[in-house]
Amino acid sequence: MAPLNTDVWQARFNRLRSNKAFELFVISIIVISALVIGVKTYPLPVMVTKAIVILDWGITFFFLAEITIRYLGEPDKKRFFHSAWNVFDTLIVVVSLIPIDNSDLALIGRLVRIFRVLRMVSIIPELRTLLNSLLAALPQLGYVLLMMFIIFYIYAAIGSTFFASINPNLWGDIAISMLTLFRVMTFEDWTDVMYETMAVYPLSWAFYLSFIFLSAFAFLNMIIGIVVNVMEEEHAAQARAAAEEAGEPTLMDLQNEIRELKALLVEGKQVAPQRVEHV
Amino acid sequence: MAPLNTDVWQARFNRLRSNKAFELFVISIIVISALVIGVKTYPLPVMVTKAIVILDWGITFFFLAEITIRYLGEPDKKRFFHSAWNVFDTLIVVVSLIPIDNSDLALIGRLVRIFRVLRMVSIIPELRTLLNSLLAALPQLGYVLLMMFIIFYIYAAIGSTFFASINPNLWGDIAISMLTLFRVMTFEDWTDVMYETMAVYPLSWAFYLSFIFLSAFAFLNMIIGIVVNVMEEEHAAQARAAAEEAGEPTLMDLQNEIRELKALLVEGKQVAPQRVEHV
Amino acid sequence: MAPLNTDVWQARFNRLRSNKAFELFVISIIVISALVIGVKTYPLPVMVTKAIVILDWGITFFFLAEITIRYLGEPDKKRFFHSAWNVFDTLIVVVSLIPIDNSDLALIGRLVRIFRVLRMVSIIPELRTLLNSLLAALPQLGYVLLMMFIIFYIYAAIGSTFFASINPNLWGDIAISMLTLFRVMTFEDWTDVMYETMAVYPLSWAFYLSFIFLSAFAFLNMIIGIVVNVMEEEHAAQARAAAEEAGEPTLMDLQNEIRELKALLVEGKQVAPQRVEHV
Amino acid sequence: MAPLNTDVWQARFNRLRSNKAFELFVISIIVISALVIGVKTYPLPVMVTKAIVILDWGITFFFLAEITIRYLGEPDKKRFFHSAWNVFDTLIVVVSLIPIDNSDLALIGRLVRIFRVLRMVSIIPELRTLLNSLLAALPQLGYVLLMMFIIFYIYAAIGSTFFASINPNLWGDIAISMLTLFRVMTFEDWTDVMYETMAVYPLSWAFYLSFIFLSAFAFLNMIIGIVVNVMEEEHAAQARAAAEEAGEPTLMDLQNEIRELKALLVEGKQVAPQRVEHV
Repeated sequence: MAPLNTDVWQARFNRLRSNKAFELFVISIIVISALVIGVKTYPLPVMVTKAIVILDWGITFFFLAEITIRYLGEPDKKRFFHSAWNVFDTLIVVVSLIPIDNSDLALIGRLVRIFRVLRMVSIIPELRTLLNSLLAALPQLGYVLLMMFIIFYIYAAIGSTFFASINPNLWGDIAISMLTLFRVMTFEDWTDVMYETMAVYPLSWAFYLSFIFLSAFAFLNMIIGIVVNVMEEEHAAQARAAAEEAGEPTLMDLQNEIRELKALLVEGKQVAPQRVEHV
Repeated sequence: MAPLNTDVWQARFNRLRSNKAFELFVISIIVISALVIGVKTYPLPVMVTKAIVILDWGITFFFLAEITIRYLGEPDKKRFFHSAWNVFDTLIVVVSLIPIDNSDLALIGRLVRIFRVLRMVSIIPELRTLLNSLLAALPQLGYVLLMMFIIFYIYAAIGSTFFASINPNLWGDIAISMLTLFRVMTFEDWTDVMYETMAVYPLSWAFYLSFIFLSAFAFLNMIIGIVVNVMEEEHAAQARAAAEEAGEPTLMDLQNEIRELKALLVEGKQVAPQRVEHV
Repeated sequence: MAPLNTDVWQARFNRLRSNKAFELFVISIIVISALVIGVKTYPLPVMVTKAIVILDWGITFFFLAEITIRYLGEPDKKRFFHSAWNVFDTLIVVVSLIPIDNSDLALIGRLVRIFRVLRMVSIIPELRTLLNSLLAALPQLGYVLLMMFIIFYIYAAIGSTFFASINPNLWGDIAISMLTLFRVMTFEDWTDVMYETMAVYPLSWAFYLSFIFLSAFAFLNMIIGIVVNVMEEEHAAQARAAAEEAGEPTLMDLQNEIRELKALLVEGKQVAPQRVEHV
Repeated sequence: MAPLNTDVWQARFNRLRSNKAFELFVISIIVISALVIGVKTYPLPVMVTKAIVILDWGITFFFLAEITIRYLGEPDKKRFFHSAWNVFDTLIVVVSLIPIDNSDLALIGRLVRIFRVLRMVSIIPELRTLLNSLLAALPQLGYVLLMMFIIFYIYAAIGSTFFASINPNLWGDIAISMLTLFRVMTFEDWTDVMYETMAVYPLSWAFYLSFIFLSAFAFLNMIIGIVVNVMEEEHAAQARAAAEEAGEPTLMDLQNEIRELKALLVEGKQVAPQRVEHV
């Protein structure tokens, strides 16, 4: 194939993949694929099951075609796999193509088909930016999360040291204890956990109450951190937008204008033949 | 009837329906109708039941009269049914008028009588604006709600794939699974659900914890979205009000004044016989 | 007694009641009275019980003396009972003085002694302002509370209409239904309530979910309302304080200065050659 | 040893303790010590247990060496123990050194080893500032916490007065009652508590509902207090940073410039006899 030929096709594919109608069609295929997943959880007549298997292969091949189009339409082939979403989409399609016989693989095949619903996020830009903003908020909270982990770890260590013999299902080792503490943090039957240990250590309520206060406080801190961040960004963005929209001058603009005025005055004076020494 | 006659009556009805005393009277009838609904849930002597039936018809006919007055008082008849509240009020009255014998219809009749309490919202302007502002906040959250639905759908699909055989009452199909996940999200006995599946899949705690984190995070995002929105609107409204009230000049006003000053200066110089070329 | 004499005493009492040491002494008596109430809930030896009875009378008489001093120290006797806190304090003391024999009255006597702890709020100004600000926030929320009551009432009416026969303990009449709905709103074993009615009406999950969404949304609205209010007041207060503190000029100050400048310029031109003495 | 010698060593230690690599090494030792604590909660073969005992002594001696280096590296020995973190670190090390035989002391020894994880907070500056800011937020909330305690105390007194005979496990004395009320506040099976007392006092729902409303309201107030505080600090800090960064002039700067301009004008007029037409 002549390079010209490829260029022509690439341009065509590029046009196709940025076509609104094509995008809508892809979204509707994803919706159908999601519905198929939902339908499969109900008991179905054999006919329908067979139809679904065929439909499923159809969806897989459509996704294969779509990703191929997007790949071929990409002018810079290397950049294609720099996008995590493209890698994700390709992986989902490739794993869907593996024929499944063995039951373990069958499970993975089913999981991959479920994750195809996530393609909805990869194809709708608004959802993608939403997810990105959620992920962007996480690292800033790194130290709060570390602090919370330390709180959990210390309480879990104390809990499994003292309460392991009372109820090994709840306090058997440090991992189980952390799960139990998460349960206490969600207030899910936490008094049952407490009353059990209070029967042996009557003062163990202090353990639970201090944990609830500390974790609630750290959690609150985390939420406030996110809220403050989000609000500040919004505020800054809004202020910028408002200033631009209204063509409102900044204080610095005003200062410059006043300085020009002063320059005018001073200059005027300097020129004026009789009073050069002034200013 | 001569058109003049109708006009006179229309003006009269119009005056009546915007009368404060009439509005208060309508509100008190709605309150009575609400009380009747409440009283009917208690065991009552036959006498009272009979009295209530009569009272109920009285209320229905009053509402019929009221809506007729409001309709006749409306100068532009077509616009009357453009208001969703007028349609709602009319529907409630019309359905109340249907005589109920058959038990299925009787149930609808009872429901309609309950929904008459909602007329409180349709008649008190403050409640109407409150409801409107609640409804106005929803569409902005469209994408966050879609994201949350996707999270629910994927987890429900995974849940019903793996856990359906463990407890069909909780994970039987995708709809039941979504209800179970909502329960987990409200922390309602979620550990019972988890411990049950952990007996078969010991690592299934990761399923629940990741779901709780994701849904809590998305939920938090939604709340922050609303809060930020509300606050920004309030802020903007307040800033505008403050500026207007104080007659505070904007930065642009100042800029204009400085420019006028400069124009004055430049002008002055231009005139000054000796240095016209300047500036 | 000569009027002069009363005046002297009134001044003395007035000085006493605004004395810091006296206030601290009253607070410590209230703390002791609170401790007595706490101690009485434990099983006590007869000796201690007797001592407490005497201590209790001592506290009552001290409070009587204190309120008398505060009354006599008040220059404007009429205004004394205009303060709700003074009325509350007097009532508590008067009821405490009634000798209690009959068991029903004894109960009231005990309650009054418990409410003496509230005197802490009446005597510490910071707590008083805190309570006042809490109460001040309520009326603004009036319409949201009304809206929420309407939501509860309608759902309770529907609930007791359909589910009364399923479980009269939860849905027997409209009052019990409202309590059950409050329970659902706090997510307290709400799925038990739901599963019970879903056995009869399989679609009743829609009833619970819509209620949870509506009430959560209205509740959220209420909280945001309070937050926005509080923040705005804080902001306004802060802005005012900042402006005053820094002596920062307002935009209007600047405008005035620029206008003076312009006046100077314009004036200068108008007048001209002859007037050097100017300014 | 000559004073010069000590000075040299002190400088060396000082350099060592502010060395980044040394800090990282200390952090990794703390992480290992945390892992050891976690591992010990699992059933282990005898060999591993023995290895852990040796590792534990190694960690203890490393911490001893590290604190000694930090102490010797401190130029002002007195100031060393002014830092609460240094006191905490020293205590942890000293108690770890006590040989443990008796079972009671062994427990304390295990607790101290768990608290060694907290050294993570003492050594990572970001966690230290996080904890400090959490602690700094507490005193401002003093009065809200006092108010909440009064609410709890009064309700607990009423509860144990009326309900002690119904269920002494929940309402036996004022301390148990406060714990029960905390449980009610977290909505943990609170209806079970309520239904039990409603069987004797049918109106006791008012007790629970009023408590929930009051405590939720006070709690909300507390959270809003923190949020407002945090936001205000952030805002102020941000405004200051923004102003400095952009070199944006303040309104006062502008005022000064305008005044200079006016001074120029006034001055010019006063002097220049010859050029009146100018300006």
